[in-house]
Amino acid sequence: MNAPARGASSRVLLQKLRDVLASREGAQERLDKIVRVIAETMETEVCSVYLRRDERQLELCATKGLNADAVHQTRLKLGQGLVGRVAQSGEPVNTANAPQTKGFRYMPETGEDIYSGFLGVPIQRLGECLGVLVVQNKEERKFSEDDLHGLEIIAMVIAEMTEAGAFTGEEEPMRLAATHTNPVFIRAVRGQEGVAEGTVMLHDPHIVIADPVSDDPEAEQTRLHHALQRLRGEVDRMLGTEAVSEQNEAAEILQTYAMFARDRGWITRIEQGISEGLAAEVAVEKEQSAIRQRMARMSDPYLRERFHDLDDLSNRLMRLLSGQSANREMPDDAILVARNIGPAELLDYGKALSGVILEEGAVSSHAVIVARALAIPLVVQATRITRDAVDGDTVLIDGDEGFVHLRPEDSVRTAFREKVAMREEAQQQYAALRELPATARCGSTVSLNMNAGLMADLPSLEGSGAEGVGLYRTELQFLIRSKVPRRSEQAALYSRILDAGQGKRVVFRTLDIGSDKVLPYMRPADEPNPALGWRAIRLGLDRKGVMRMQLQSLLRGANGRPLALMFPMVAQFDEYREARELVLNEIEKERALGHTLPSNVEIGAMLETPSLAFAPDAFFKMVDFVSIGGNDLKQFFFAADRENERVRRRYDTLNISYLSFIGQIVDRCTAHGTPVSFCGEDAGRPTEAACFAAMGLRTLSMRPASIGPVKHMLRQINLDDLRRVIDGAAARGEQSARPVVEAWLRKQGLETS
Amino acid sequence: MNAPARGASSRVLLQKLRDVLASREGAQERLDKIVRVIAETMETEVCSVYLRRDERQLELCATKGLNADAVHQTRLKLGQGLVGRVAQSGEPVNTANAPQTKGFRYMPETGEDIYSGFLGVPIQRLGECLGVLVVQNKEERKFSEDDLHGLEIIAMVIAEMTEAGAFTGEEEPMRLAATHTNPVFIRAVRGQEGVAEGTVMLHDPHIVIADPVSDDPEAEQTRLHHALQRLRGEVDRMLGTEAVSEQNEAAEILQTYAMFARDRGWITRIEQGISEGLAAEVAVEKEQSAIRQRMARMSDPYLRERFHDLDDLSNRLMRLLSGQSANREMPDDAILVARNIGPAELLDYGKALSGVILEEGAVSSHAVIVARALAIPLVVQATRITRDAVDGDTVLIDGDEGFVHLRPEDSVRTAFREKVAMREEAQQQYAALRELPATARCGSTVSLNMNAGLMADLPSLEGSGAEGVGLYRTELQFLIRSKVPRRSEQAALYSRILDAGQGKRVVFRTLDIGSDKVLPYMRPADEPNPALGWRAIRLGLDRKGVMRMQLQSLLRGANGRPLALMFPMVAQFDEYREARELVLNEIEKERALGHTLPSNVEIGAMLETPSLAFAPDAFFKMVDFVSIGGNDLKQFFFAADRENERVRRRYDTLNISYLSFIGQIVDRCTAHGTPVSFCGEDAGRPTEAACFAAMGLRTLSMRPASIGPVKHMLRQINLDDLRRVIDGAAARGEQSARPVVEAWLRKQGLETS
Repeated sequence: MNAPARGASSRVLLQKLRDVLASREGAQERLDKIVRVIAETMETEVCSVYLRRDERQLELCATKGLNADAVHQTRLKLGQGLVGRVAQSGEPVNTANAPQTKGFRYMPETGEDIYSGFLGVPIQRLGECLGVLVVQNKEERKFSEDDLHGLEIIAMVIAEMTEAGAFTGEEEPMRLAATHTNPVFIRAVRGQEGVAEGTVMLHDPHIVIADPVSDDPEAEQTRLHHALQRLRGEVDRMLGTEAVSEQNEAAEILQTYAMFARDRGWITRIEQGISEGLAAEVAVEKEQSAIRQRMARMSDPYLRERFHDLDDLSNRLMRLLSGQSANREMPDDAILVARNIGPAELLDYGKALSGVILEEGAVSSHAVIVARALAIPLVVQATRITRDAVDGDTVLIDGDEGFVHLRPEDSVRTAFREKVAMREEAQQQYAALRELPATARCGSTVSLNMNAGLMADLPSLEGSGAEGVGLYRTELQFLIRSKVPRRSEQAALYSRILDAGQGKRVVFRTLDIGSDKVLPYMRPADEPNPALGWRAIRLGLDRKGVMRMQLQSLLRGANGRPLALMFPMVAQFDEYREARELVLNEIEKERALGHTLPSNVEIGAMLETPSLAFAPDAFFKMVDFVSIGGNDLKQFFFAADRENERVRRRYDTLNISYLSFIGQIVDRCTAHGTPVSFCGEDAGRPTEAACFAAMGLRTLSMRPASIGPVKHMLRQINLDDLRRVIDGAAARGEQSARPVVEAWLRKQGLETS
Repeated sequence: MNAPARGASSRVLLQKLRDVLASREGAQERLDKIVRVIAETMETEVCSVYLRRDERQLELCATKGLNADAVHQTRLKLGQGLVGRVAQSGEPVNTANAPQTKGFRYMPETGEDIYSGFLGVPIQRLGECLGVLVVQNKEERKFSEDDLHGLEIIAMVIAEMTEAGAFTGEEEPMRLAATHTNPVFIRAVRGQEGVAEGTVMLHDPHIVIADPVSDDPEAEQTRLHHALQRLRGEVDRMLGTEAVSEQNEAAEILQTYAMFARDRGWITRIEQGISEGLAAEVAVEKEQSAIRQRMARMSDPYLRERFHDLDDLSNRLMRLLSGQSANREMPDDAILVARNIGPAELLDYGKALSGVILEEGAVSSHAVIVARALAIPLVVQATRITRDAVDGDTVLIDGDEGFVHLRPEDSVRTAFREKVAMREEAQQQYAALRELPATARCGSTVSLNMNAGLMADLPSLEGSGAEGVGLYRTELQFLIRSKVPRRSEQAALYSRILDAGQGKRVVFRTLDIGSDKVLPYMRPADEPNPALGWRAIRLGLDRKGVMRMQLQSLLRGANGRPLALMFPMVAQFDEYREARELVLNEIEKERALGHTLPSNVEIGAMLETPSLAFAPDAFFKMVDFVSIGGNDLKQFFFAADRENERVRRRYDTLNISYLSFIGQIVDRCTAHGTPVSFCGEDAGRPTEAACFAAMGLRTLSMRPASIGPVKHMLRQINLDDLRRVIDGAAARGEQSARPVVEAWLRKQGLETS
């Protein structure tokens, strides 16, 4: 058998394929011609194309040699038979004796039992399997390496044609081949609540390739090398810029980048593709497909990250080659789709976005923090979204549930719109409560406050009905910048925040960094368990310069107004004592300088580690107020990481142990007359908030959007009765109070969160 | 100027150097000749060699061209002047105008101010800087790339000569050049307590190169390629073995290995070194030096790990080239020195080792666990030990303090021996207490038990005076194997442990894996905070098959005897209830099968998360006993990782908060008549153990070696008095009870831990 020798002869075949593509024929005719041309050129008895019907099935779409009646009849599951194996593994199968090969499955309607030699290669684009291309012979002989390589090149061109819609016909049987038209449902992870309908805007747009085959390999090589040169220039420029000139993480990633950009192996493989007749873009893409294939098989997170770098580099190279720029018009209802995004980039897009969908990302990432501040619905870990979505697609994002509907069917869209309408209605209902206090039926009133972290949050203070800002996260301003803000900038910012607060109480939390919050200009520490590491006040007390600067900025920003500040993650008495001492020293210094002092200074401590609940009485007497940081406290209490999907839902907030512990903290504070509040996600959930209030908490701080629902709940219940319900569950030895609490709420016609 | 062109002409120079080496002259004469030969061949006006005097200083040791009187007089600090810069950075400096170049420092005694052209390269071996080789010209012209390259090759050969002692003379001035003879003190991290004096045995022995220059580059190339072929064969065999055939972490590392083994860039650079006249080993080493240099500059732990792989591969290649095997005679008092070591490898060396020193490794690594079981002193993170130590060196290891003295001076050795003698004396004193109870002056008796995890531990049960095994860690048997032990193997093992216990109570803890303990055949989960992740009972309840098998093995191993078992890290009531249910089911199954049942079964829970202390009363009524797992409990209580050097010493065990919490747990258990014990490192520290007893604990479990010291302490104090001391500190608002407790102990003439 004559295989297309590398280079010249494969080019002839590719030219023929292009002629087929250029013809005005229908989809089916084109495919039929292609299999005939391949079989003739490669001198094989059979050539067939199987294309993906849906997520799980392949369909025989054209054949030369097998029974023509089987076309559009024979279907295979992914992984089924040799063809299914190729599709599933993304790797070729080459065997001299197919019926004896593991996984072989005989399809009587095809008449393929008489063929022994089998060579199947995946038709894939960017690591995505679109189908399988197969050649078969009666003869019991293995195909050569050259045959295999040649067939892979052909499969690459077929993949490009498939993607460009060359095989998508009007007729029903050929509909299957159309990609990026079917509805896709993705179960992602909630990042920021909210729902939206909008238009996909890819952060990294796909490159459209007009012609996958080239007439002039030499010209293509030249284009490649020009693009590579510019790529190296780009990377070197990035390496040279001052921002990364220090020996830091970013520079290291760029060095890896630079290493890849000069990687001979990578470039050689691309050159080879071109010499075999592929357009430069397609040759790059072929290599990128191979990379993604390897990536999918890697479990090692770091190796994956390095391969992602190479993938990003391929994208850059593709953009340089195609000349397609990333500057596009932004649709009015844009929903950004990205593999990942930095906080500064997201702030650049700003409030104009209707939603954000990330393929990777974590609940705790900076982008999510920014999205929360901007109140843009966001989901993370939306598997495959950057592959499935194309610019202009309609998409529904549900940040409450963590769902994404891409190209939704009408029925889904209608249901979704109803949900949005209901949400708006409820919001209006809550708005009516805005001026009313959160007074429960028993007469107790709970103070509801909001959390904030960016200037963008402050407008909510008026609209949400919050009494004040219970938690202002000062680190967000640091996280979104590339340098430490100067003292004067900080002071001006704090002053503007107090202006926006219009006399309402704002509690500033000093820098809470470390763990998952690493400043862009800080070297991340390599800690085995960052949550249990060098963070928050530990870092602040060990690096007093930054803390002093912040304290001074806060004192100046207050400018004669009252100032409330608190320190994060105080684990033992001395940490509070030392931090308090620092504040008092700064006040003395300001006084000595003749500066205006705040009219009053409250110095609080966040109770986020179980240990502080057991501090000596003297601590509770000294501290001005205690704020329970529920997110961290719960994770240390149960030793369960709240960012770890495997354990984060394992322990319920209404667990008797946790509620008892909260009660014990409230009791100790009450005994010493120490004001105590609770901030954290749980405070924003009506059922949880009600239980906290029943355990004695009278101040809660939460997202602005939660204030309405929580107030609505509190105003309808009797906290004393609820406490009795919880105590009853504890006495009966129940693990969680949730079942009885929810039943009790339902009996009163209340919805449970 | 005529630079030695690449290849042929550099070979001529290398041959001349070798002739110098072969001569019978003294060290100084050799060096003097070398600088003359280089200056002549390269046609430069100056050639000088600076060698390391000590850790911080370089000394001018030979020069052609500079003032001869400056030899052995001029010294430079690392980083000082251009020469110091080369030494510190490990990178060449090449400048046309030295006096104008940043960092230049004029040494009047050398007369070097008239020289403009400067080219300096490091003399380094395996990333270790031994000195600097410099050529200088009056002319203001930069040396060429070829000059630079040629000089690097020469420096490589000088490095080999230096290492082989070619420049080490009897005379004082030349002593400096001798490496591996000075005493070295290393402050490492404690892994396992104990002290020992012994002889270094390198896990990866250094290769000794007889002749760094070759006459026949072609023959060397052939040797290299034979060795490479064998190397690839070795790696491919490792990849092919069944153990790693599954898609797991090990296979991935091997694939990286295999990738490097075929890395053209790496091989090309080695070939180039050979073509320039280096012996194959030296060419490999030159490349390895460059790798180590890059490694040292990397902060990214993962990239480092990948470069370590390449480094290991170089070692393997060197061993193949030199034919030097790793099978050596083991000295009687061998102290193993390794970069890192696996638990199985360490068990292979076994008890015959007197100590283990690891350059890397973590306190929680499996090797440390094994060393603990074998009671071999071990330290980790002993910086540079694998570079500084050579086989046969005398070394002192102090596992109590984490110190290493390599090639110690006599005074150090004497002091060390005294310490060892004192330790032995104390041990004898404790041995006298063996048969006596730990009854305090107030009349209360504390039950002291030992922790164990391997059969090797059991002999200590008799000698230590322990009442029983308070914690038997069953996972160690799993950690040191490559497969899950079968049920029958497990049962036989548990039976043998009970045999060895001779009727004493042994408390088996069910598998405590996850977090830092990953079984070799388990895929490690990628968790941001493994300590707060999917581990211990969480994993056991989610994968019940393994747990059921272990429970059945325990029931069978008991074989009619009493059985005590406990579940690790129970965080909420239902986890205990579910696990207990599993045990009861297995008992029923065994009964139905007619098997012998244990005469009694106790089912306990480890209290390691703060949450369990707040469980409903019903839990304390149901559970047969509670064992406080102090190591984990303390880290969750304070949210401070005990493996993280930055925070692990931040919170004291005698912190009032922690002691109050322990007291509260004891009180709850006492109220329900639930037996409660404490196991963990703190129980083995006499002062801490005394405080726990004062808070009401009457059962402690610790390392066998700690039982004597703890018993000694307890027998001399009144626990009621101690409790009053602690309560007093709490009432006065002190953060820690330690100051007053230690003062109180000292007043009674007791040492504090």
